[in-house]
Amino acid sequence: MDYILKIDCNDEKGLILRVSEIVFKNGLNYVSTSEFVDHDNERFYMRAVMVGDVNLDEFKNTLSAFLPRDARIFCEEIRKKDIAILATKENHCLGDLLIKHSSGELNANIVCVVANHDTLKPLVEKFDIPFNLVSAENLSREEHENAVLEVLKKYKFDYMVLAKYMRILSPFFVSNFPKKIINIHHSFLPAFIGANPYKQAFERGVKIIGATAHFVTDDLDEGPIITQDVIRVNHEMTWKDMQRAGRNVEKVVLSNALDLVFDERVFVHENKTVIF
Amino acid sequence: MDYILKIDCNDEKGLILRVSEIVFKNGLNYVSTSEFVDHDNERFYMRAVMVGDVNLDEFKNTLSAFLPRDARIFCEEIRKKDIAILATKENHCLGDLLIKHSSGELNANIVCVVANHDTLKPLVEKFDIPFNLVSAENLSREEHENAVLEVLKKYKFDYMVLAKYMRILSPFFVSNFPKKIINIHHSFLPAFIGANPYKQAFERGVKIIGATAHFVTDDLDEGPIITQDVIRVNHEMTWKDMQRAGRNVEKVVLSNALDLVFDERVFVHENKTVIF
Amino acid sequence: MDYILKIDCNDEKGLILRVSEIVFKNGLNYVSTSEFVDHDNERFYMRAVMVGDVNLDEFKNTLSAFLPRDARIFCEEIRKKDIAILATKENHCLGDLLIKHSSGELNANIVCVVANHDTLKPLVEKFDIPFNLVSAENLSREEHENAVLEVLKKYKFDYMVLAKYMRILSPFFVSNFPKKIINIHHSFLPAFIGANPYKQAFERGVKIIGATAHFVTDDLDEGPIITQDVIRVNHEMTWKDMQRAGRNVEKVVLSNALDLVFDERVFVHENKTVIF
Amino acid sequence: MDYILKIDCNDEKGLILRVSEIVFKNGLNYVSTSEFVDHDNERFYMRAVMVGDVNLDEFKNTLSAFLPRDARIFCEEIRKKDIAILATKENHCLGDLLIKHSSGELNANIVCVVANHDTLKPLVEKFDIPFNLVSAENLSREEHENAVLEVLKKYKFDYMVLAKYMRILSPFFVSNFPKKIINIHHSFLPAFIGANPYKQAFERGVKIIGATAHFVTDDLDEGPIITQDVIRVNHEMTWKDMQRAGRNVEKVVLSNALDLVFDERVFVHENKTVIF
Repeated sequence: MDYILKIDCNDEKGLILRVSEIVFKNGLNYVSTSEFVDHDNERFYMRAVMVGDVNLDEFKNTLSAFLPRDARIFCEEIRKKDIAILATKENHCLGDLLIKHSSGELNANIVCVVANHDTLKPLVEKFDIPFNLVSAENLSREEHENAVLEVLKKYKFDYMVLAKYMRILSPFFVSNFPKKIINIHHSFLPAFIGANPYKQAFERGVKIIGATAHFVTDDLDEGPIITQDVIRVNHEMTWKDMQRAGRNVEKVVLSNALDLVFDERVFVHENKTVIF
Repeated sequence: MDYILKIDCNDEKGLILRVSEIVFKNGLNYVSTSEFVDHDNERFYMRAVMVGDVNLDEFKNTLSAFLPRDARIFCEEIRKKDIAILATKENHCLGDLLIKHSSGELNANIVCVVANHDTLKPLVEKFDIPFNLVSAENLSREEHENAVLEVLKKYKFDYMVLAKYMRILSPFFVSNFPKKIINIHHSFLPAFIGANPYKQAFERGVKIIGATAHFVTDDLDEGPIITQDVIRVNHEMTWKDMQRAGRNVEKVVLSNALDLVFDERVFVHENKTVIF
Repeated sequence: MDYILKIDCNDEKGLILRVSEIVFKNGLNYVSTSEFVDHDNERFYMRAVMVGDVNLDEFKNTLSAFLPRDARIFCEEIRKKDIAILATKENHCLGDLLIKHSSGELNANIVCVVANHDTLKPLVEKFDIPFNLVSAENLSREEHENAVLEVLKKYKFDYMVLAKYMRILSPFFVSNFPKKIINIHHSFLPAFIGANPYKQAFERGVKIIGATAHFVTDDLDEGPIITQDVIRVNHEMTWKDMQRAGRNVEKVVLSNALDLVFDERVFVHENKTVIF
Repeated sequence: MDYILKIDCNDEKGLILRVSEIVFKNGLNYVSTSEFVDHDNERFYMRAVMVGDVNLDEFKNTLSAFLPRDARIFCEEIRKKDIAILATKENHCLGDLLIKHSSGELNANIVCVVANHDTLKPLVEKFDIPFNLVSAENLSREEHENAVLEVLKKYKFDYMVLAKYMRILSPFFVSNFPKKIINIHHSFLPAFIGANPYKQAFERGVKIIGATAHFVTDDLDEGPIITQDVIRVNHEMTWKDMQRAGRNVEKVVLSNALDLVFDERVFVHENKTVIF
């Protein structure tokens, strides 16, 4: 059996030694390990892939007893994650995930798509994924979010992926899924926060544009960044040209971020990520 | 003789034809040409390298007579530009320019360096370039700028290059050299405007940092962007690591921007650049 | 009406002037123009987007009369291209084109897909595109290619796109579609020509891998390059990890190349491309 | 005291535990650690920065006793490396190192420069570094190399850096400095091995060029790659334009590779590198 172990806690002397002793005493062997100490915050991060047979609860209890009190310990058998996708009208990020899902290349099962428009219904249904329309028309933000939450209750999922979901989520909504919502923002954050970043980029006359995948927190476009990428643009491009070119970056950045998260390579601490 | 011609004006029908007729009637031949029409602003841009023999004043007068009234016409024999460099303490951008200058690879003559600290004096003097210290100590911004202007009066130059000059220039100072001051900003603008962008980038937890070369205008870090580039960073890097890594980007971005400007490839219109 | 004009010919003095005169005398106006002279080969390239109403045959005849004898003149109303796609088993490039096609973002109509395996049949049929299986089993290369040609005869198309078609085409097959077949090669050519470039890259221990879109000629992986891109890899990655990461690059590079070709921005001369 | 520890050996169960026990029993503490297991070759790699006070010889002996027989153990106090630089005529890589050296940003002391031309003498002497001319004129390769070796004998250095040294080194010469010679090759290896890669790149019509820093082995341009980078090129560029643009990449790639090597982040195993 293959397990993944993630620990983060206040740094102390001898943590690697302590963890390694417990791992080996429990009949587990490291396949790979990574550690990082954030010396500014005196915080220790460790990720290990392990092979063996173990009683997970006992193992975690033992670790817990020997690690600092604040330690966050994650240990699971390696498995595909279940995800819910929220989308609006654009098909590039969603389409990319559906194509990867259909050939088994996405390290996740898409359990459902929820959208506030029906534009993407035909696409989603081609791939036999449940499509749920929750129109926002004539609804307050609160009413719409409650309707979305109602739909989501029908599904079990590990992460929610905003694949160009063009609505701002309220702190209440986000608080239901802490560190579990991943968004793709169509700019190189923190540049061009907010609406229509391609238009903002065009007006500023930048020579490079980008995209940013991040966890969603209460503050719009301010959550912990997972990954980013950029492409060059020039004076010949209108903002619609930039938008079109940017879509290729958006979908690749989102897909790369999901790989990292689903492989349990990402730690979130306050507003930053540590990524192995 | 090789000439460079740059025209920008309101767009009208038949501009290329008109310019081409005048060029050929004056015994000039195109070596290369580029045009661009900004359809949003109905503005025409043209750059040509030409060979032949011509009376420059007559040629420009004829062009002027046949082009829209607002036309800006630049025509010169191809030549190296003269530049003044302003710097503070860091040696990477200045050093890169000095090395390129010494092997003739910089398309410019460095006529002088002016700095507000004497840190770089030994470096500059190794390369037999006049070094002028204008300390800002005990001086108001106005007094210091006047002292810098006084020094600069001794030199003739086409462009002023801020090679990590760590002082903010007043609108008055800038107004003396409109579209003639080129700055390297150590961030991917418009992200991290202002002081210590590497620290800002570190604190935001971005995964990519960059540098931006731009013309200096009255608004700090808001001038027309010439070129930008980026590198990847990660959670292991402190802001000083980012600063160190960023220096390689800064010097290359500045050098690339200068190549474009000195080759007369850059048009500035309002807050943007058109670059051939 | 919007037209696109492409000219390439031996360079002579006054070509831009001559073309511009003919354009305007025929009641056409430039929307945009680009020129390039390859001084090594004394060859002139020009692309223009024009608006107006014109008798295309007359216009081309006039141009032909006033341009050098060897001139290749292309002039058409701007339109979507028709394309046939050849594929094998991998779904990432094909899937990307299907997704873009379905939202009208691909500047082409996919008239059919031909594959030597039936793996991709369900995907293609989801999007209501004709899928043609031409198995190569028990067939010689010649027999298989003839069978493919037979199928292709049923369709009218401007370009053939090899979206990870894992068979080598014979010179005879290629000669039927000169400069009309576009391939995506899964390496940064000319590195790693031939079979399994990811394995070759892994074995060589490179730190960057890439993909190359090119026109297909008689020489395997030696055709004119349209565009290329790269990503970083590291010692942790197996060749299968590289392959998986590389797929994102492959599909973006192919898609970018097709944009350039379908917008008539690409000239092919001998083994190189000129791209506006 | 800060120490750096590097271990590579055949993989066995419990290596991290064993090393960690020895580290802590010797009164050392980890500041940072990284491990990697190459599962193809069953080989274990570990790098640690440690703080404490230790008898280095005893510590290494203990490690040696508890690690597999084939283990390569490197443990040193953290220190600047000493380097000899070989160059020919181009000043960009050498100049970059001299500038960084002069501000203490290079993690090394340059003990001497050896060149087969005197072009760079004035530059090197500006920075008060011993410059040694060993002209190859009228000498066989063997004679020239012996003369270079004779000069190098006067200096003590950890690494030899070929900063655009345009001569091929014989296996005999290389055998004197195994895994100690670092070269910058002006192409994206393995593309364009051998002479004038920019000309080769131009002739092939590639759209991206690059540079590669690698350890020198007997096989020309075939040594273990440390790092690589690329830039975009286009049809407007002659091979000399590519060469000029490429210089910025060459110097940055070389400088990045040296950072990695001098920080003891690089392991060489057969023809590959593992880099933490």
